[in-house]
Amino acid sequence: MTSADSSTTVRLPLAQLHDLACRVLARQGLSPAHAQAMARTIVAGQRDDCASHGLYRLITCSQTAASGKVDLQAEPVVHPTRGAVVRVDARRAFSPLAFERGLPALVEAARTYGLGALVIQQCFHFSALWPEVEDITAHGLAALALTPSHSWVAPAGGHKPVFGTNPIAFGWPRPGPTPFVFDLATSAIARGDLELHRRAGTPLPPGCGVDAQGRESTDPIAVAQGAMRTFGGHKGSALAAMVELMAGALIGDWISQESLAFDDGAGAAPCHGELILAFDPIQLSGGDLAQAQQRAEVLLSSITDQGARLPSQRRHAARERSLREGAAVPRTLYEEILALAH
Amino acid sequence: MTSADSSTTVRLPLAQLHDLACRVLARQGLSPAHAQAMARTIVAGQRDDCASHGLYRLITCSQTAASGKVDLQAEPVVHPTRGAVVRVDARRAFSPLAFERGLPALVEAARTYGLGALVIQQCFHFSALWPEVEDITAHGLAALALTPSHSWVAPAGGHKPVFGTNPIAFGWPRPGPTPFVFDLATSAIARGDLELHRRAGTPLPPGCGVDAQGRESTDPIAVAQGAMRTFGGHKGSALAAMVELMAGALIGDWISQESLAFDDGAGAAPCHGELILAFDPIQLSGGDLAQAQQRAEVLLSSITDQGARLPSQRRHAARERSLREGAAVPRTLYEEILALAH
Repeated sequence: MTSADSSTTVRLPLAQLHDLACRVLARQGLSPAHAQAMARTIVAGQRDDCASHGLYRLITCSQTAASGKVDLQAEPVVHPTRGAVVRVDARRAFSPLAFERGLPALVEAARTYGLGALVIQQCFHFSALWPEVEDITAHGLAALALTPSHSWVAPAGGHKPVFGTNPIAFGWPRPGPTPFVFDLATSAIARGDLELHRRAGTPLPPGCGVDAQGRESTDPIAVAQGAMRTFGGHKGSALAAMVELMAGALIGDWISQESLAFDDGAGAAPCHGELILAFDPIQLSGGDLAQAQQRAEVLLSSITDQGARLPSQRRHAARERSLREGAAVPRTLYEEILALAH
Repeated sequence: MTSADSSTTVRLPLAQLHDLACRVLARQGLSPAHAQAMARTIVAGQRDDCASHGLYRLITCSQTAASGKVDLQAEPVVHPTRGAVVRVDARRAFSPLAFERGLPALVEAARTYGLGALVIQQCFHFSALWPEVEDITAHGLAALALTPSHSWVAPAGGHKPVFGTNPIAFGWPRPGPTPFVFDLATSAIARGDLELHRRAGTPLPPGCGVDAQGRESTDPIAVAQGAMRTFGGHKGSALAAMVELMAGALIGDWISQESLAFDDGAGAAPCHGELILAFDPIQLSGGDLAQAQQRAEVLLSSITDQGARLPSQRRHAARERSLREGAAVPRTLYEEILALAH
């Protein structure tokens, strides 16, 4: 979309998109606080040319809102910090507000103890993890975030769904405006991409899943009825299991199977917990932040100097342009969203 | 090796192997404390039929010892715990003793704050990470361990070595004797396996590396001169970068490039830091350990019930037999080790 022409794409100031998203979300029944927090996440996606996590989400959000599963108004409850653990009960509302409410205590815990954990419970987590990770790196902390989803993915050596798409996101606070960030699904393909193939009637890349009989398949409908595969064979499968254990069992919240059972065919976003860890480079490095940062820059330069890309490089380049010229929005999507606002 | 016949394999009691390993390590110049700690790790490897991390290591250990890089006697210095961070300076000695000395404070930090970090600095880490992870799960804690190595691995999209084989190990404390554990290299193939192919003159599986000109290659000699690949494409590459940033830059210790530069052709084991995180399921789950464990068992059963294996299942089965009947050791290796002891 970065070079889309102006007949099919409009560029809009971020503040205008934020107001538009807030209006749509308010019409869907979200409280002002939830609408604001959701709009910030959605506009961040659009700003970074991350189409699947941008304004398009206002449409899928309405599906989740209409499912009756999600509480559109519930105020998150931030429990008093115990040790280095901050616990926020999202009370089956959307996740962004719960994250925002827990963030200050997480930052304080990491600065006080060297590292801290934010446990969000019972949230509808429909955004990507990278906005949360970047909100933490903005405080000069490293971050690791994990969450289960819906059990759509088979373990290596099996063919029945057990895991969610189980993303792992990590961020390192580089000097300057953009951190080192990745946000990767442990499934071979993102669920949203499988849906896009299903709608377009195009085959999946090989190795993404199996049909209900456990046979390799590139048919998106068959794989949706069967199981997706993890990325990277048994290693990706091990990491997917870790996400279930860390961001499910460990934090006393649902694993992906329980989230899908709760959904019960409603087609809503997954509801479960989230585990977000923050690390203070000053304390963990033994006090020498400048050296820690310099080392990281040597590493990252030795990647980019040979022409390889850093994980979020394309997204950050899009952001730079969007901040200057406004975010690019496909005209048809924009008109669809405008209609939702009235 | 589990069904090896008795003419080529001997089964020996673990205590006898431990004493043998201690004698060999003492002859190589290790202090009694280091020899004991190293022997525990090495015998654990042999017990689990993990040949590359078993008695065979006594031979590679002598190479590292002879390099003059490693301090065979240095006592690790355990710094006073700050917040939830335990810092141990291994002082360029082998890692197992530093880990053992830091473990009690790590367990205490995790129980006190909900999670804790053990930072080991400047250690020669030649063992696998799973023995350390299992030592933590034995205390009822979950564990995540990361370490760089030597820069042998190219980032996705590049062809020059930047990363180490950068393992990620994770453990979950199941009820019963064996935890859920994995210990995976983020490289497409373990360095030890590349060495085995080189010695045997057999080609590598496709996709493991490139030659010095950046061309795909299955020739182990060409790949050793060029670069190995990460597992899982750009996702494995992102995780490998995370290991450098977390277990290098973040903790104020060497990244894999610095470790290889320090080695300077000596062929010793990598010297660098290690980051080990421990998590208390009681505190992180909000107090309901029984429910956390039950959820984990539901997850793991849904993997094994469909015939898929858990990551360390083969290793744990070998352990069970070794504890009953003694560990299996190839007769030629046993004789080689016996000769080293006298």
